[in-house]
Amino acid sequence: MLAYQLIERKRNGGRIEPGEWQELIASYLRDEVTDAQMAALLMAIYFRGLDHEETATLTETMLRSGSSLDLSHITAPRLDKHSTGGVGDKVSLILAPLVASLGAVVPMMSGRGLGHTGGTIDKLESMSGFRTRLTLAEARSQIDRIGCALIGQSDEIAPADRRLYALRDSTATVESIPLIAASIMSKKLAEGLTGLVLDIKRGSGAFLPEVERGLELAHTMVALGARHGVPVVALLTAMDRPLGHACGNALELEEAIHALQGEGPPDLMRVTYALGAEMLVLGGLAAGRDAARRALEVAISSGKAAAKFREIIAAQGGDPAVVDDPARLPQAECCELFFAPSAGFVASVDPRRVGFGVIELGGGRSRPGDPVDHSVGFIIAVRPGDLVREGEPLATVMARNAAGVEAGRRALQGAIVIADEADYPLPLISHRVTLEGATPYEASDTPVELAAQP
Amino acid sequence: MLAYQLIERKRNGGRIEPGEWQELIASYLRDEVTDAQMAALLMAIYFRGLDHEETATLTETMLRSGSSLDLSHITAPRLDKHSTGGVGDKVSLILAPLVASLGAVVPMMSGRGLGHTGGTIDKLESMSGFRTRLTLAEARSQIDRIGCALIGQSDEIAPADRRLYALRDSTATVESIPLIAASIMSKKLAEGLTGLVLDIKRGSGAFLPEVERGLELAHTMVALGARHGVPVVALLTAMDRPLGHACGNALELEEAIHALQGEGPPDLMRVTYALGAEMLVLGGLAAGRDAARRALEVAISSGKAAAKFREIIAAQGGDPAVVDDPARLPQAECCELFFAPSAGFVASVDPRRVGFGVIELGGGRSRPGDPVDHSVGFIIAVRPGDLVREGEPLATVMARNAAGVEAGRRALQGAIVIADEADYPLPLISHRVTLEGATPYEASDTPVELAAQP
Repeated sequence: MLAYQLIERKRNGGRIEPGEWQELIASYLRDEVTDAQMAALLMAIYFRGLDHEETATLTETMLRSGSSLDLSHITAPRLDKHSTGGVGDKVSLILAPLVASLGAVVPMMSGRGLGHTGGTIDKLESMSGFRTRLTLAEARSQIDRIGCALIGQSDEIAPADRRLYALRDSTATVESIPLIAASIMSKKLAEGLTGLVLDIKRGSGAFLPEVERGLELAHTMVALGARHGVPVVALLTAMDRPLGHACGNALELEEAIHALQGEGPPDLMRVTYALGAEMLVLGGLAAGRDAARRALEVAISSGKAAAKFREIIAAQGGDPAVVDDPARLPQAECCELFFAPSAGFVASVDPRRVGFGVIELGGGRSRPGDPVDHSVGFIIAVRPGDLVREGEPLATVMARNAAGVEAGRRALQGAIVIADEADYPLPLISHRVTLEGATPYEASDTPVELAAQP
Repeated sequence: MLAYQLIERKRNGGRIEPGEWQELIASYLRDEVTDAQMAALLMAIYFRGLDHEETATLTETMLRSGSSLDLSHITAPRLDKHSTGGVGDKVSLILAPLVASLGAVVPMMSGRGLGHTGGTIDKLESMSGFRTRLTLAEARSQIDRIGCALIGQSDEIAPADRRLYALRDSTATVESIPLIAASIMSKKLAEGLTGLVLDIKRGSGAFLPEVERGLELAHTMVALGARHGVPVVALLTAMDRPLGHACGNALELEEAIHALQGEGPPDLMRVTYALGAEMLVLGGLAAGRDAARRALEVAISSGKAAAKFREIIAAQGGDPAVVDDPARLPQAECCELFFAPSAGFVASVDPRRVGFGVIELGGGRSRPGDPVDHSVGFIIAVRPGDLVREGEPLATVMARNAAGVEAGRRALQGAIVIADEADYPLPLISHRVTLEGATPYEASDTPVELAAQP
């Protein structure tokens, strides 16, 4: 009866009070509220939204439905980064060891591929033996020893979110800003953080393509963090093309290893440094973003970041030698170049088509539980705006067999558009959102010196 | 995957094609589409609506999910009336024998009480032994013999509607005009009718209180009937107060019997005659509404209508003597008058409070399957606009015990408002809706003679 009244009230544009949220979620977990009732409520929320307090209460209720990582005995700053999901986005793989190598604790919980986007956990599992399913106790002990753990969402964390997320995923109620914000933050707040940096993707390959919606999501999550005493900074970054060159699990891990060795592609490094600098400043490990960026560069050039990655891999059962010899990662059977069909400008490299192309190659799941071939994917050499000649190689397809090569070629034919002219792609990093509001992104925090007055 | 795409498309304001509806409903009945997915779709439909073709396809698909009453061998007109539900609305109990006594076939399928409203089936079951659960074969055989059967919705009729209705009832997705229209018409079209009259309630006690929404529902159902070759006429009638005096199962049956004996209250008789006249005209049994009304009056004054009710009761296992001695119906233990607390005008007799009061007395269900005490209820002597003196009896409470009397009194205290002035109640019958559109209701079809031009 409670569920009915709350659905009806939300449907009519009303609000649900804190005690009602708690009772609703508790009843749902006891199976007294049905999946059907919850699905109807989620769809009503899709149309009617949640106000700030409702979003905060839902987040809190989902957080409290499970356990948290208790890291309060650790004096070092506890930092994490979360991305709303993209194609070619291997930033977490670089950032976790990089920031941990500078004295922060990084208790990073990640997900699997979702829709057209890849997932950090799938990429890590390219390494045979690498365990991503640690218990909270195991994660805590590893964090005590080496300052970082790279794990999947444990069953102990926010079970209410896990049930609600699966329901949203089957009922087309994922794309609701308050529901997205509550889902992400209920898990991130369970990590016991002292600071969180968000990478909010925008553009055609993002779950929320419009910049306004990305900003709204950023504001919502920044406010949710503040309510729980966790400072949050969000950057809006471009997902109108893949990030970096590699798309596919082992290929992306390899590109991340190159990045940790100082050889990452420029767009990937700019985003990694921007997010890492925010983490270090939030953690009090650098006085400002310029200093933070220099610290990050030194951690890479000195080999400290790569060393930390070896430590993590060894701790979680993988082969640390892959950091020095990525050829140990699974290699695809077939490898063929994809050539420009005509001369012109690259007008687009569509991340959705690339991402679904990886799935078609076997590198992602059409349905939950499908096996994943970690070796397959694409290396895409061009980006929007590049001028290309006819017959020039634009990309490489890594596939299991000839049929896979053909499927990959078709995906690239759809994804890479060559035209007589090309629009400017989105700025790589466009906005920075804090509790004070949104500002255009500036990489440096050093004020530009004005010429002295004459 | 189909379900997901259709939910997403409807959520975004798109339309679902005929073949997709068929596959969706078939998959739902095979449990391949979950209740949660269907609930999310229903809520999306609540917000986005269905266009005429979608509504027609959904109706048709639900109709075809089960059997129909095949009455095509009958040459007499096959007529029914459906009401959208009210308090004190016992019109079906009068109309079915009345119209059947004039040569029509009336295969009337009715429901149980729903929300604050009563149900014809519950009222009929006040008669011990009266069977409302006939099979379609039994109903058909009875109709062949005596021209009428009064039955509940058989499991054989529109099973898809039954599942969807139960789902809507638990997920606050009932109040959607296309879903209401499709649900009603999928059942009514299964009766093999040649004409259907709708009583669309409006006002505070109706499921759709606003006249615009009532008109929209009427237009939708008239159009659905036309698509299936069934002429439909709808009247909009007042449900800002109960209809007649009696509210409660046996009490309403008794009032219906009085009406069949020529002693019904005027408002009840006006609505009954208006709907009955439309049925007779639709069936070609009267040349116009004036002639039809005279035929209805004669059927009552001659005793033909009451005799037909005796036949129906006997055929379905009840005691036909109740038609001559309604005291044989269950009688409540306690019976107490309710007096005017002050002098003034009756400003309202709130049907929702009266209806929920009947449920509180035990005369309706708080949840499906609850037992029903047929004897309890109210006889309400006053209507909005009446001038009353302090201490004048306004109503009678029929209850099981002293606690029931007290609960009934409290319900009436809330329902009956006495004030210094009173607004006009809604016109008893306000609109008539056919395929040609909506017109203000005129009881007579005889044009008013204009004075000759001078």
